Amino acid sequence: MIDFRPVFWIVGVLLTTLAVGMCIPAVVDLYLGHPDWQVFAVSAALTLFIGVALALMNRTPIARLSVRQAFLMTTASWVALALFAALPLAFSELDLSYTDAFFEAMSGLTTTGSTVIVGLDEAPPGLLLWRAILQCLGGIGIVVMAIAVLPMLRVGGMQLFRMESSDKSEKALPRSAQVAGYTAVIYFALVGLWSFAYWAAGMTPMEATSHAMTTIATGGFSTSDGSIGHFDSALIDAIAILGMIVGGMPFVLYLRMVAGDRGALWRDSQVRAFLAIVAALVVIGTMWLWLHNGLNPVQALRYASFNLISILTGTGYATSDFYRWGDYAVPLFFFIMFIGGCAGSTTCGIKVFRFQVLYAAARTQIHHLFQPHGVFIPYYNRRPIPDDVINSVLGFFFMFILCFGLLAIALGMLGLDYLTAISGAATAICNVGPALGEIIGPAGNFKPLPDAAKWLLAGGMLIGRLELFTVIILFSRAFWRG
Amino acid sequence: MIDFRPVFWIVGVLLTTLAVGMCIPAVVDLYLGHPDWQVFAVSAALTLFIGVALALMNRTPIARLSVRQAFLMTTASWVALALFAALPLAFSELDLSYTDAFFEAMSGLTTTGSTVIVGLDEAPPGLLLWRAILQCLGGIGIVVMAIAVLPMLRVGGMQLFRMESSDKSEKALPRSAQVAGYTAVIYFALVGLWSFAYWAAGMTPMEATSHAMTTIATGGFSTSDGSIGHFDSALIDAIAILGMIVGGMPFVLYLRMVAGDRGALWRDSQVRAFLAIVAALVVIGTMWLWLHNGLNPVQALRYASFNLISILTGTGYATSDFYRWGDYAVPLFFFIMFIGGCAGSTTCGIKVFRFQVLYAAARTQIHHLFQPHGVFIPYYNRRPIPDDVINSVLGFFFMFILCFGLLAIALGMLGLDYLTAISGAATAICNVGPALGEIIGPAGNFKPLPDAAKWLLAGGMLIGRLELFTVIILFSRAFWRG
Repeated sequence: MIDFRPVFWIVGVLLTTLAVGMCIPAVVDLYLGHPDWQVFAVSAALTLFIGVALALMNRTPIARLSVRQAFLMTTASWVALALFAALPLAFSELDLSYTDAFFEAMSGLTTTGSTVIVGLDEAPPGLLLWRAILQCLGGIGIVVMAIAVLPMLRVGGMQLFRMESSDKSEKALPRSAQVAGYTAVIYFALVGLWSFAYWAAGMTPMEATSHAMTTIATGGFSTSDGSIGHFDSALIDAIAILGMIVGGMPFVLYLRMVAGDRGALWRDSQVRAFLAIVAALVVIGTMWLWLHNGLNPVQALRYASFNLISILTGTGYATSDFYRWGDYAVPLFFFIMFIGGCAGSTTCGIKVFRFQVLYAAARTQIHHLFQPHGVFIPYYNRRPIPDDVINSVLGFFFMFILCFGLLAIALGMLGLDYLTAISGAATAICNVGPALGEIIGPAGNFKPLPDAAKWLLAGGMLIGRLELFTVIILFSRAFWRG
Repeated sequence: MIDFRPVFWIVGVLLTTLAVGMCIPAVVDLYLGHPDWQVFAVSAALTLFIGVALALMNRTPIARLSVRQAFLMTTASWVALALFAALPLAFSELDLSYTDAFFEAMSGLTTTGSTVIVGLDEAPPGLLLWRAILQCLGGIGIVVMAIAVLPMLRVGGMQLFRMESSDKSEKALPRSAQVAGYTAVIYFALVGLWSFAYWAAGMTPMEATSHAMTTIATGGFSTSDGSIGHFDSALIDAIAILGMIVGGMPFVLYLRMVAGDRGALWRDSQVRAFLAIVAALVVIGTMWLWLHNGLNPVQALRYASFNLISILTGTGYATSDFYRWGDYAVPLFFFIMFIGGCAGSTTCGIKVFRFQVLYAAARTQIHHLFQPHGVFIPYYNRRPIPDDVINSVLGFFFMFILCFGLLAIALGMLGLDYLTAISGAATAICNVGPALGEIIGPAGNFKPLPDAAKWLLAGGMLIGRLELFTVIILFSRAFWRG
């Protein structure tokens, strides 16, 4: 039997932290004289009570989690946080059902950015801040997990990144907990930097902070129904583009750079592949909008880079010009959702390093086909890829497509049309935000969907965010028997 | 350098055979007094000339092909056959462009069944017969290849089926060429049986023969624009359903049964999984049409089993009632396209055994995640799956999705709408026939697509039919260098 106490203890501690987080919008609303501060105060009290109670009731002397406990802890924390983070949304003057509130909270914590709220521009300021805080917390949560938890769990080839940190054995960055701590500092420094940049470009301090949080977290919640398009500023677009790219790269490499290894970022093969993909998409997109849709080259560059990078990194900001692309580009946008950014960033999707591993494996396989007795070794980042990593990555890819397919079929059966069902499933599992089509596309909203679809999509976001196997493993009978 | 002579020699022999095949519709047209017999005579003469010339010019004493030659031969034969099989279609009174004719010929030879011809009911009888013959030849071609060529080429895990035949070492079935020969006899016997059944159920002899050929080949070309729906007969539907299931199972197992091993079919785990999938889909589909769309249970069973099995096996026959399903079922139909039938059958798609291998591998991987030091062995057909097979299958799955994605994006860029682009790419690579949506759905036609899209789709059919790697390998520089 699994000892649940350490799991509950961690969940309790995290809920207590969440309760403290709820005080920020409470203070802001109180300061701005908005009555919604009470909603946050009540939610914070309730969350604090449950969190402290869980933590106190489950104190154990156990310092290290077993593998099973670690799996359970990961999924349980994310679910518990979403359940309680939904409270202020459910209690607020927006009058959301609990389903809608949970969907919004899960969308926030997983840095997805799909929303069910219409009328953001008139929403209480504390609430807008809360949504941004959720994405900010979700972003740092996944970055920390990618350093400290996922490599240990060896899900989907993430063991590649355990190797890397232990092999290099740099004395300056000794243990993963410490690395995670320093990386968090970098993360918040970047949020601060982008807040300043947005503010300097003309946003109000509230808007600037909120957008900085959702940019670096590649989340995509905005303070306006018009998203970034609301500001209609090329400078703000440029700041967002840069921020999304920064959010799409491994944060631990920024730490290395700060620690003196200036070339850390550029030497990393995943980062180079990611930037190459970005560059290729921007070039193709710009040519398209320029030659095919008749925009002038500068406009074309602006819209192409903004829209494509927003979808690629799973941020999901929109500008009003999304529909300049025409229907023709829909399949392109659909497929780049699946790519995502780098492992160790705040992006989701299949992630660039997996495509590199898949490409290397496929290449090896093809060579092996016509030279059956040759020895071919696939490489990643200038090192041979161990067999178990290749298997993990290939298995991850299969599971990703399988989950996507099952979710899309289920959404179809709930009555969603083809485009909504298929792109909705993709946007949830890849944590992008907007889907495609009229209903839940960049100009749409998830509000009109049936409740069952919202729960399914929230489940899809969770599975995608936690690298699939972390959640799926809990449905294996052997996991509970052992 | 690769010695091309044996490759050209085989292509020459195959073209000569094709020329002989062209004489059948010529004779039929002549007998029925239709002037189109001249079209077939001219095409046959031209094909015969090229075929004989190629064969004579490239006679070599080499008895065995190298692996490279085998890869080249496989793709080259299929392309050459399609190029020449298109001639009668291009010359006929239907006035097709060569692009359309090639598309139709490739669709026939790969047993896809997508068509660009409108007005089948008034088309010359020889031409209808020719389309059916192409599917019949394509079907036997792929069955023979799955026994004699693909296991040797080890593409996408097909080496599983080499093992099987050599391990069992049954003396009754010694060598793959002989097995392939006997299997061809079984194949044509089944076509004969189904011709008789269709005829007895009320079709004319011409219709019965044509439909028997396209049923057992799971091809789906019909002699009427209304497809099988034209006959509006429950009995004919039932015969077609049974025929599509028979066409979806490994033909070599029928041979074993005939040779005395009555349980061969039922013992095979791939067959059981395939039949389980069929049963599950029929039950779900029947419940759906009955409870959700208000058909009576018998009607529901008839339409559910016909439509679902037609798409699952990639046959692509339609009945006029396809739209009774409503939009909700579109994602379901989309995803079952990818499943296909058994390896060694005439169906395409990813195929059932690969899903079994993928499932076994995923299960093992999940167990391994929480018991890192445990030993878990994935099984297929009661035997452990070798690592290289798992890798091949996982690699195949990745490549399949990649090709599908790239084809869909390319089709989108050519101006096709989302549903047409995505489902068109799927229907081509999976060799299904009709796609989804208004334009190229079951009631539609591929005629209105731009020429470039037709060439791309024909390429997709070829890649899918030849298990991807057989074609993709030719684009590897190392293949030509070595």
